[in-house]
Amino acid sequence: MSGGVWFPALGLVAWMCCLSLGPVQGGKVLVMPVDGSHWLSMKILVKELTRRGHEVLVLVPETSLLIHGSESYKTEIYQVPYTKSELDGNFNQLKDGVFLKPPGISDLFVNVERLVNFTSMQVKGCESLLNNQPLMSQLRKGGFELVLTDPFLPCGSVLAHDFSIPAVYFLRGLPCQLDVKANQCPSPPSYVPVFFSDNTDTMTFPQRVKNILMSFVESYLCKVIYGHFDDLVSRYFEDSMTYKDLLSHGAIWLLRYDFTFEWPRPVMPNMVFIGGINCAKKAPLPADLAEFVDGSGDDGFIVFTLGSMVSNMPEEKAKHFFDAFRQIPQRVVWRYTGVTPEHVPKNVRLMKWLPQNDLLAHPKAKVFISHGGTHGIYEGICNAVPMLMFPLFGDQGDNVYRMVVRGVAETLSIYDVTTEKILAALNNIIHDKSYKEKIVELSQIHLDRPIEPLDLAVFWTEFTMRHKGATHLRVAAHELNWIQYHSLDVICFFVIILLTVLWVTLKCCLFCTRKCCRRGTAKRKSD
Amino acid sequence: MSGGVWFPALGLVAWMCCLSLGPVQGGKVLVMPVDGSHWLSMKILVKELTRRGHEVLVLVPETSLLIHGSESYKTEIYQVPYTKSELDGNFNQLKDGVFLKPPGISDLFVNVERLVNFTSMQVKGCESLLNNQPLMSQLRKGGFELVLTDPFLPCGSVLAHDFSIPAVYFLRGLPCQLDVKANQCPSPPSYVPVFFSDNTDTMTFPQRVKNILMSFVESYLCKVIYGHFDDLVSRYFEDSMTYKDLLSHGAIWLLRYDFTFEWPRPVMPNMVFIGGINCAKKAPLPADLAEFVDGSGDDGFIVFTLGSMVSNMPEEKAKHFFDAFRQIPQRVVWRYTGVTPEHVPKNVRLMKWLPQNDLLAHPKAKVFISHGGTHGIYEGICNAVPMLMFPLFGDQGDNVYRMVVRGVAETLSIYDVTTEKILAALNNIIHDKSYKEKIVELSQIHLDRPIEPLDLAVFWTEFTMRHKGATHLRVAAHELNWIQYHSLDVICFFVIILLTVLWVTLKCCLFCTRKCCRRGTAKRKSD
Repeated sequence: MSGGVWFPALGLVAWMCCLSLGPVQGGKVLVMPVDGSHWLSMKILVKELTRRGHEVLVLVPETSLLIHGSESYKTEIYQVPYTKSELDGNFNQLKDGVFLKPPGISDLFVNVERLVNFTSMQVKGCESLLNNQPLMSQLRKGGFELVLTDPFLPCGSVLAHDFSIPAVYFLRGLPCQLDVKANQCPSPPSYVPVFFSDNTDTMTFPQRVKNILMSFVESYLCKVIYGHFDDLVSRYFEDSMTYKDLLSHGAIWLLRYDFTFEWPRPVMPNMVFIGGINCAKKAPLPADLAEFVDGSGDDGFIVFTLGSMVSNMPEEKAKHFFDAFRQIPQRVVWRYTGVTPEHVPKNVRLMKWLPQNDLLAHPKAKVFISHGGTHGIYEGICNAVPMLMFPLFGDQGDNVYRMVVRGVAETLSIYDVTTEKILAALNNIIHDKSYKEKIVELSQIHLDRPIEPLDLAVFWTEFTMRHKGATHLRVAAHELNWIQYHSLDVICFFVIILLTVLWVTLKCCLFCTRKCCRRGTAKRKSD
Repeated sequence: MSGGVWFPALGLVAWMCCLSLGPVQGGKVLVMPVDGSHWLSMKILVKELTRRGHEVLVLVPETSLLIHGSESYKTEIYQVPYTKSELDGNFNQLKDGVFLKPPGISDLFVNVERLVNFTSMQVKGCESLLNNQPLMSQLRKGGFELVLTDPFLPCGSVLAHDFSIPAVYFLRGLPCQLDVKANQCPSPPSYVPVFFSDNTDTMTFPQRVKNILMSFVESYLCKVIYGHFDDLVSRYFEDSMTYKDLLSHGAIWLLRYDFTFEWPRPVMPNMVFIGGINCAKKAPLPADLAEFVDGSGDDGFIVFTLGSMVSNMPEEKAKHFFDAFRQIPQRVVWRYTGVTPEHVPKNVRLMKWLPQNDLLAHPKAKVFISHGGTHGIYEGICNAVPMLMFPLFGDQGDNVYRMVVRGVAETLSIYDVTTEKILAALNNIIHDKSYKEKIVELSQIHLDRPIEPLDLAVFWTEFTMRHKGATHLRVAAHELNWIQYHSLDVICFFVIILLTVLWVTLKCCLFCTRKCCRRGTAKRKSD
């Protein structure tokens, strides 16, 4: 900035100081994570809490995808009523479906169906834990001061409520905005776009009409998506309690939000924004990978991954990518475990797992091809790498759209991808400088913060333990029902008063008029 | 906290680190302050910005109350169309009025009248600056990157808009919540109490009725209070522009808010909470004062001040205080410049100005008697000293009420104060341990924060300079009118559609019914 100021963000200093503080006398934290990519960022906080001297116990289902034991935290393994192959089967169904184009406008409903199929199995796992009396009794006596959980699944908040200890939620957001609704956060539909509406925060009249229609659809979907959850909650607590009611007891919501990615909107005092928490940890690249990307010359290289859960794709789709990569000068590091063609292009390195953030942090990284998951997007923003995205399911379509609108990404549909389309998009992103300029600007804003997301997450987790909650941040709206919240009873009262006054006035006028008329008539008669 | 954690807040570390960073290459900041107590906390930020290497120019009216030149910042003195004695007269009118009980329910309107009288003179001063062409031209060419201003008066935001540079607002709040309205922050009247309503955030049905009625009154008062401001703004910019429109362009709102004092409520992403910023600076007490308070023994001492602007009171009122203080074992440090009785009690030290925060930080401070200004309240909270408060005008009644409801203060009316009432209240606060316990708890929560308020204020001021604003935090609601914001046009559209469908359906039914009937009649006739 010309004639301006630029100095190391205070946050960096705070972070360094924080690191130098070292472990402190710890509290006892019970962690109920959600398997899959959700766990990858929560793990960062869990590890940091352990490093700071807290006693952390992570509850792990006996069959899990990505949650494993670690030296950094203790685990307690609980039985679930499904086998590893059933879980894999359930998950593969979700994964494989993403490459099949849903018919017509049913995209949203297909997404919901896949989600409900996936979560219903997890809810069974949760019930199995809650019914495991010896384990529950052991946990209840464990002296935990806090439950750290991802409310994407209900088990953590059930445990917190059951044990009467505060809950800290760690999430990006919940389907159909249940997080926002449960935390009584206003969302005016005139400028807060509903998911799957393809709207930004600036809408025309037809877009606002669509947004409100979609918010009705969303309310209906909420019932479908959280049906299992509501059943579970009402069985364990009061009959009338819903999952939304239970969620509303959360002390602090650690949201992987940042307004370089989310649209600015009203927020609540107990919402803490830790978007980009997954960018914090950087490590040097393995020697052979470093050699591969260092050798990419001025053309640089492309990082390609479809997220932690999807590492392959149908052969004919993969062929388009191989053919496209064969024609570009950039090198490509691709997380791919699918079928490979006879001659893999020399500029392509296939890997089973790749150090995504470390690769993106490399100065020669030119484009990040991804599925539009939030972790990847934040890593793209942190490292200022423009993106080409193939949204697969869930919130990814919306995520991608936000980046495209900001001019830092292009998107293609995975259903009808071709070699030509990939080439055109890549060439555009690499040669049109505006993509890079805009992502650098976005990155500078994102990284310019008074305190690092990990430190903020640690602070508020420890705050909740120190003060046994965060009641001073809890709005009184939680004690109101829908009618009271919207002051509908007060409005009715005013309307009744107004009508009564009008009625009495009218009666008085009629009475006076009649009296005057009678007098007039009597007078005329007497005349 | 038993078995829990307590470690030095990260904020303290951040603050220390920040101090050690030392000055950096600076930006150019134009400061348009508001005279009186408002300046006292803004000055802390202004001094810190200078210390960090920024070139700060403070605009000072030639006749002012508390804004003076300093080595810590440059000043530019501008002419105003009133003399020092006129300003003092205007201000004394405001001050003296506070001891006269307004008749009946007119308290609110008396408050507004006093406010309008006070601000109208200041607005004239502002116009004088804006019409000072040589000075305006010099400022315009000054290369300022930011205007730091208190929007309690309009001049700063006018300058920012005129010079097309971003504005950072520094305030506690504006009369009739104009800050909240201008920043498009939702305030559901069902749990956000309106000023002067005597409501907390938890209201019964009658209280909610009152709250909504008061919000109507508030909307009317907004027009009265900001009439001068609207005139000024529409003269300098577009005819249709109001002060609220102008304010909505603020990049960052540095609000002296903290939820140990304010009721939790929805907030916006560009609202930064720096409540307690005035507690940061502590210095040792002057030797004689230290000796006086150190010698107070186990009984401790009382700090008594009615704020920076009111240092005396009618003799007969003061007599009640002198008589009360004569009967207690505590020593009293009292900021008082009024008439003194023949024998001032030995335990009372009268001073023209007192180091309030340093006195409250003393471990022997037992009670803080104040008028309920926000600066004093934050210092009471920071230092965990329970309070006895005599609200005088403006927001003070509401401020005091918030502390009383939290069980950390008592309040008395200055209009009908007596020796007995003062003694009873003081005895209560000193001997009922709950006051101290509750203020200690509140203080611990208030001080437990990830970053110090001054550092946060500095960070966001510098952020706004670095990025030429904070557009990523600006909600799109600013582009909507009232009808659009509340989706009333969309609702009307739905109602029209619904009515049309109903009408068409009805017509079709009627048509079919008629046709059937005719056929039936024709059939019967042909039979």
